[in-house]
Amino acid sequence: MYPKPLEDLIYNLQKLPGVGTKTAERYAFAILNFDPETKEEWKKALKNISQIKHCKECGNLTDHDVCSICENPNRNHKLICVVSQPKDIIALENMNSYDGVYHVLNGVINTAKGILPSDLNIDSLIKRINENTEEVIIALDPTLEGETTNLYLEKLLGNHVKITKLAYGIPVGSHLDYADTRTLTKAFEGRK
Amino acid sequence: MYPKPLEDLIYNLQKLPGVGTKTAERYAFAILNFDPETKEEWKKALKNISQIKHCKECGNLTDHDVCSICENPNRNHKLICVVSQPKDIIALENMNSYDGVYHVLNGVINTAKGILPSDLNIDSLIKRINENTEEVIIALDPTLEGETTNLYLEKLLGNHVKITKLAYGIPVGSHLDYADTRTLTKAFEGRK
Repeated sequence: MYPKPLEDLIYNLQKLPGVGTKTAERYAFAILNFDPETKEEWKKALKNISQIKHCKECGNLTDHDVCSICENPNRNHKLICVVSQPKDIIALENMNSYDGVYHVLNGVINTAKGILPSDLNIDSLIKRINENTEEVIIALDPTLEGETTNLYLEKLLGNHVKITKLAYGIPVGSHLDYADTRTLTKAFEGRK
Repeated sequence: MYPKPLEDLIYNLQKLPGVGTKTAERYAFAILNFDPETKEEWKKALKNISQIKHCKECGNLTDHDVCSICENPNRNHKLICVVSQPKDIIALENMNSYDGVYHVLNGVINTAKGILPSDLNIDSLIKRINENTEEVIIALDPTLEGETTNLYLEKLLGNHVKITKLAYGIPVGSHLDYADTRTLTKAFEGRK
């Protein structure tokens, strides 16, 4: 019913996560009503993301060969924090207190989905770890898959380097009765 | 913190209605992970929407000079249904029972937002109405602005042509106690 170019746009917008027909329609009409400069910026932005690749060193996203964190001489390269995705780096960087470097696994072990250790960025992690490495901090999501990956890495690297992982517990500022049982259990186990 | 091209994409995605930083990030990462064909389709879709214009006749969206409804000789051109936006045509077409044509006002009168009758596609509506026109059906949203526009059109055209408007009432399949007072009032007023 819509003109073909609009149909195409609506169809394509539905490839975004969580976007159904209604939302795609709303977005398409918004795009249609963008001023010409905004449309031009959108096209440019979509074109330019082809420049984004993974950092040779740590797997983070970058538009250079090595990401800005890895090439920063002021960061502590003896401290490697392992995360599952580039997004997590942003969250951790927002703490403004960690000065080490990162390593992005690009996923976690998930046998149900067929994601095995060999599919993850683990080989390059092993290569990065040397006698200068002081600590590997594992910062994966507290999910079943995260824990599995955690255990795998601990077993793999535990003899070569000091391994730590993030503490689990009640989120700061939240209420105890809102925490689920597993979080509460973890918080109890980790009590000081 | 993100590489510049990714930042740009996230920034631009936030121009979509209801999309904040978090959602824009989620969309940007999804786009980043699109396969090359999907990326290409997106670029093409964005490029092609520049072909979309308003139908010369009724103001509906089209990629031709005249929209598919206006140029369809099987439609009843003596019946004109007035809607506020092209989206509404889709909703009405889904009824599969109306065989007349449409006229898109591209908005409703909204003095608070400074939208006056002269900003709407009303002149072309007047020009379309002639001795052959049997009925003008006003199908605007039952909002204050819709009603205002309604009254304005009724006053403007009422002497020249038969004007009707959609019936208000309880939505089919809903419960009476869920209907708001104004809907109930309208339903009472319109009782048969």
